[in-house]
Amino acid sequence: MKKLQELIDRLQGQPPKRVAIAQAADEEVLKAVKKASDIGMATFLLTGDVESIKQAAHKAELDLTQPAITIEGCEAAEASSKAVKAVKSGDAQVVMKGKVDTKSLLKAVLNKENGLRGRGVLSHVALFEIPHQERLIFLTDSAMNIAPTLEEKVQIVKNAVGVAVECGWKMPKVAPLAAVEVINPAMPATLDAAALTQMNRRGQITNCIIDGPLAFDNAVSKEAASQKSISSEAAGAADILMVHSIEAANALYKSFIYFAQAKVAAVISGAEAPIVLTSRSDSAESKLYSLALALNYSTK
Amino acid sequence: MKKLQELIDRLQGQPPKRVAIAQAADEEVLKAVKKASDIGMATFLLTGDVESIKQAAHKAELDLTQPAITIEGCEAAEASSKAVKAVKSGDAQVVMKGKVDTKSLLKAVLNKENGLRGRGVLSHVALFEIPHQERLIFLTDSAMNIAPTLEEKVQIVKNAVGVAVECGWKMPKVAPLAAVEVINPAMPATLDAAALTQMNRRGQITNCIIDGPLAFDNAVSKEAASQKSISSEAAGAADILMVHSIEAANALYKSFIYFAQAKVAAVISGAEAPIVLTSRSDSAESKLYSLALALNYSTK
Repeated sequence: MKKLQELIDRLQGQPPKRVAIAQAADEEVLKAVKKASDIGMATFLLTGDVESIKQAAHKAELDLTQPAITIEGCEAAEASSKAVKAVKSGDAQVVMKGKVDTKSLLKAVLNKENGLRGRGVLSHVALFEIPHQERLIFLTDSAMNIAPTLEEKVQIVKNAVGVAVECGWKMPKVAPLAAVEVINPAMPATLDAAALTQMNRRGQITNCIIDGPLAFDNAVSKEAASQKSISSEAAGAADILMVHSIEAANALYKSFIYFAQAKVAAVISGAEAPIVLTSRSDSAESKLYSLALALNYSTK
Repeated sequence: MKKLQELIDRLQGQPPKRVAIAQAADEEVLKAVKKASDIGMATFLLTGDVESIKQAAHKAELDLTQPAITIEGCEAAEASSKAVKAVKSGDAQVVMKGKVDTKSLLKAVLNKENGLRGRGVLSHVALFEIPHQERLIFLTDSAMNIAPTLEEKVQIVKNAVGVAVECGWKMPKVAPLAAVEVINPAMPATLDAAALTQMNRRGQITNCIIDGPLAFDNAVSKEAASQKSISSEAAGAADILMVHSIEAANALYKSFIYFAQAKVAAVISGAEAPIVLTSRSDSAESKLYSLALALNYSTK
């Protein structure tokens, strides 16, 4: 895949899935809903306070009477669990954050009785379209796990591979990043990378090719990898960059956006259904791409 | 400063300093020497095996008979200590790596008797010219300290501030980066950032304004900082990004180069004299900028 637009194109001709929005009274979110429903990309279940939703919809110029939109009124505090329940019951396939705290939405998702816990480790999976780069590249985890253990990294890799495979990648190449491409006992990132690589070879992590540690340049540039004589299927060809810490992943994510002028789609993976957590600073285009990524990823 | 070229311009009209190159028999390094001597930026002391230096100079089209060049023949294994000694004695002001291992050069620099130990903590200071950005930005430490302690971070900040001040920055703004801009006890990067900020306010780190933690976007973009209502002198205006770990700093460094098409100059700071460690993958332009950065930084 070369363009994020392809995520939207892939949905054409498929029966539209439904997105449940927790407390939908958010003008920016409803602008994305308008765009998505205008092109028939999805249908929407808007939960939350009906009057507030109507006001926000008016500002977003979203017609709430169209068949693609259903409203389920409830107290704002109930909106997260309402949206999660809609997905749990099969009435919707994707959860999207509206005007609620991320914390309260994730609490509803992780609720042991009525939630969508899935594998238990949720992680943030971002897909970037970077100018001058030939392919889209996934980056994980820049938002959820602060200092993931090896066990958590296994889940983080699986979560990202799950997204990639559903979006059409066959055997995505995963590069666990470190500052160097050699194993250094003083650098835990390199040890975890080696372990993940061997777990992949032993069939403990499937549907992907893992090869690390790789430094960023060796992972993304064939030229850099060959200058260092690194022989690896993932070197210079990584589809998924798995980053050691939230500090590194978060800074990389933002450097792609602010310095490399990249476009991004992002989804939370690892629950029973995709979760879309857009933030105010995301562009309208990015929100639409994130929805498309989640809809592609949804397997229900 | 907006362009790395200004580092070169600042040297014009100043008496040229001398750069001691450890085992200078490296074609790429001598190409940089040729460019630098052509514009009168510096003079050079080439140490190492004379025959090999002559061969490399021939390939680099460098005239070894010009007055700007002096050769001090020695066994290749002695070249590092020879170059370091030249700086120690005042015969040169900058050490540059030729065809020697980084390790052996740093060993000579850190030698307790004959070295240039300085503050004891050496760190890598890179200065980037990034397309679409209004100002040059320093990044540290992407190569030397794996997981710096707070004490080491203090030296890393001082080392970077030292470079910035000698290059013309007055009171550079330092942003200790983290994944978030709030203090989170579970995130050591945020605690160290808070400590560094207060050390600056208490006069323990001077000649700069430190304010952190800041996430990458809050540090570099005024818009991102104002969207989050962050009130800070460094927010959106950081001159120096001080990164928590080598994994994060190294990946950022390479993302600037490979994804943001940035140009870079880099120097090792913290010893008694600047050390230039260019690598084979650096462009000729980048090697020249690194030399200029080191020459500006040199105070001897």
